[in-house]
Amino acid sequence: MEKVNIGLLGLGNVGIGVYNILNLNSNKINVLSNKEIVITKILVNNLNKERDISLAQNMLTSNIDDILEDSDIDIVVEVLGGLTPAYDYIKKALQKKKHVVTANKAVIATYGKELLEIASRNNVSLRYEASVCGGIPVISTLSNALSVNKFEELIGIVNGTTNYILTQMTDFGLDYDDVLEDAKRKGFAEADPSSDVEGEDAAYKLSILLSLTFGVEVPPDAIPRQGITNISKEDIQYAAQFGYKIKLLAAAKQLNNRLEYHVCPTLIKKNHPLSSVNNEFNALFLKGNAVGEIMLYGKGAGSMPTGSAVVSDIFEISRIMGSTLNPTVPIPMNNPENYELVGNGTSEYYIHLIVEDKPGVLGMITTCFGDAGISIDAIVQQSRGDQYVPIVYIVHECPRVRLDQALSAIIKFKEVKEIKSVLQVRK
Amino acid sequence: MEKVNIGLLGLGNVGIGVYNILNLNSNKINVLSNKEIVITKILVNNLNKERDISLAQNMLTSNIDDILEDSDIDIVVEVLGGLTPAYDYIKKALQKKKHVVTANKAVIATYGKELLEIASRNNVSLRYEASVCGGIPVISTLSNALSVNKFEELIGIVNGTTNYILTQMTDFGLDYDDVLEDAKRKGFAEADPSSDVEGEDAAYKLSILLSLTFGVEVPPDAIPRQGITNISKEDIQYAAQFGYKIKLLAAAKQLNNRLEYHVCPTLIKKNHPLSSVNNEFNALFLKGNAVGEIMLYGKGAGSMPTGSAVVSDIFEISRIMGSTLNPTVPIPMNNPENYELVGNGTSEYYIHLIVEDKPGVLGMITTCFGDAGISIDAIVQQSRGDQYVPIVYIVHECPRVRLDQALSAIIKFKEVKEIKSVLQVRK
Repeated sequence: MEKVNIGLLGLGNVGIGVYNILNLNSNKINVLSNKEIVITKILVNNLNKERDISLAQNMLTSNIDDILEDSDIDIVVEVLGGLTPAYDYIKKALQKKKHVVTANKAVIATYGKELLEIASRNNVSLRYEASVCGGIPVISTLSNALSVNKFEELIGIVNGTTNYILTQMTDFGLDYDDVLEDAKRKGFAEADPSSDVEGEDAAYKLSILLSLTFGVEVPPDAIPRQGITNISKEDIQYAAQFGYKIKLLAAAKQLNNRLEYHVCPTLIKKNHPLSSVNNEFNALFLKGNAVGEIMLYGKGAGSMPTGSAVVSDIFEISRIMGSTLNPTVPIPMNNPENYELVGNGTSEYYIHLIVEDKPGVLGMITTCFGDAGISIDAIVQQSRGDQYVPIVYIVHECPRVRLDQALSAIIKFKEVKEIKSVLQVRK
Repeated sequence: MEKVNIGLLGLGNVGIGVYNILNLNSNKINVLSNKEIVITKILVNNLNKERDISLAQNMLTSNIDDILEDSDIDIVVEVLGGLTPAYDYIKKALQKKKHVVTANKAVIATYGKELLEIASRNNVSLRYEASVCGGIPVISTLSNALSVNKFEELIGIVNGTTNYILTQMTDFGLDYDDVLEDAKRKGFAEADPSSDVEGEDAAYKLSILLSLTFGVEVPPDAIPRQGITNISKEDIQYAAQFGYKIKLLAAAKQLNNRLEYHVCPTLIKKNHPLSSVNNEFNALFLKGNAVGEIMLYGKGAGSMPTGSAVVSDIFEISRIMGSTLNPTVPIPMNNPENYELVGNGTSEYYIHLIVEDKPGVLGMITTCFGDAGISIDAIVQQSRGDQYVPIVYIVHECPRVRLDQALSAIIKFKEVKEIKSVLQVRK
């Protein structure tokens, strides 16, 4: 059986998952790929660190050139994370005509097109299944089975940390800050959770998904994003009253050649399949013009699930190695439908205001919505005898720009103390 | 651009879907596959039938040899359904060294291994994505991305007709017979629905899934199956009281080298992701040793969703045509883990009895369960002043054989009028 030699960059959480899966399932993987897949070198920072797995000492190196210059290594697997030095290593490995598998969303969202072109010029694969939704095979499904569809809509719960926090707030009526501390203790949130809770991580993933579904190139920082740091348990309770759950969605939809996209906490109807995606789970919901509605659900992070995605890429490359099949992963077409790219487009919205509890205020605010051409779907106002009270509106579909116009008029009233939150609503 | 010529066998519901998708999405499909995919001949029964699509008259033929003997045809697409003559046509096409795509669960479940071996000997592909769960890419995901996992459990809602009926009974408190008539009118059930409602269709699909997940060959008629014809709206209401929904599940699990499998209406907890799979939707839920829990959800039938799966197979074959990559789809390994194959194994059960409403009956029945070593999780008994009353038990996990032993003792009591239903329970 032909050997496939792997150089593994990184032996953290995901690297150990990859190592363990290749050992645990080697009989199945080798028979199905008809290759013997072996990790021969591993790049680590500290050669002498104590590790849970026992490795031959000569497998470890702290010098990247021991892998890049080793002509026996067929596939370089990058699981370091972060832009630096991962981007540089991936580029050099491709230039050395080595296939590359990466779990790195930041590198792929930022430099994916350039790296795919380098891979193509060097006639090698660059695969990145693990970069979006961990163990769920979203990249390969979008590139293969579902690619015969034209897509109309994409909605993803692509960040496990925020989904865990929102689920716990919903299920136990807890405050954001308390759940965040708990999530840190349990390993569901990092010590500095800002990239997750502010929607940056989700924007990386949406950028990658947009290229695969709609063939458009939208850099992560061009995606309008709103995090979950302002979501209160009251918002979650109001949403529940209206029959919704709040989820952080990475979403895109096309309408009359406009393509709208954003990352935003969103009220989603309780009977929508995405509303049952809880805690650390991820899911991608799509509407294709042939397949209709489809959803892929699973674990978006973790050593073994993410390792599963990395190993599936290694497996796919191994299967085609030695044949004349072009190993290049197709570079997504460049905006084939000529979409006009629009950040925040139109949506229904949920607006939570804090206002003085006195006659006439409701009328003033409602008039502002009317002046901006926005019609109201539902209102909740609960007078509690306090000086300030919350008012919650759900308004019918309107352009975000018109909503902002109404809100800028509303906030000028001295009776309006605060716009507590503005969230999207999806029926 | 190289041309790929398709011979289409059948122009019913699915055939028209395939034709429409290849036209509608041709720009995308041709660019991504780097081939021009064209249907050149279509086998139909009646050349002169009125059709919704306009075709060049010389595309249609009623003679299979016009396709099998046409050396320009690269891929034969079989969407006739049924064993005869589909099996024969597929076999001949493979022997003529044509790639074959089929949507035919009966043929694949019954003759899949033989046909895959014929394909392998002739160095051509036999692909069958559309045979299970319509548009959801379950076959390719199990064969590719998820194949690096060893599986522990598989639970599928694989039959849209029965899922539609059970959902309607649940949501509207309706009787089986009324919903079945409605389903027939709406096209969700066939005039003779027996294959669907008696679980035969689900057993075909489970047989195919068992080969791909556990590498075992279990003929459809060796799979214990129970349909939904005896499910009453009362069963659904009792299940709801205990926090469950009733779904027809095609399921398998491995435990200590035993592999258990069956098709059975099952009580499933309301917070399980499968319990939100409603109406005509299908889903496959899996536990892999690396990926953990994962679910694929979508439309299991219909012209366009099923067409999407067929076209994805055509697309995959087209991509590798002209290369030296072995186009053969791997033949599932032959019971690699040496599983002991067990039909009905152990489960928790729901038992609905009709008994005389008099003192001592409950004790007699409960003693029978105890004698068989079965312990009781929950009981509902509602005295209504009638001569006969229902008693519902949920019992803890036990072998089916011991349950049957207890039930055969219970039905001998003259006070026990009827065992109305015995269903599985999954927490």
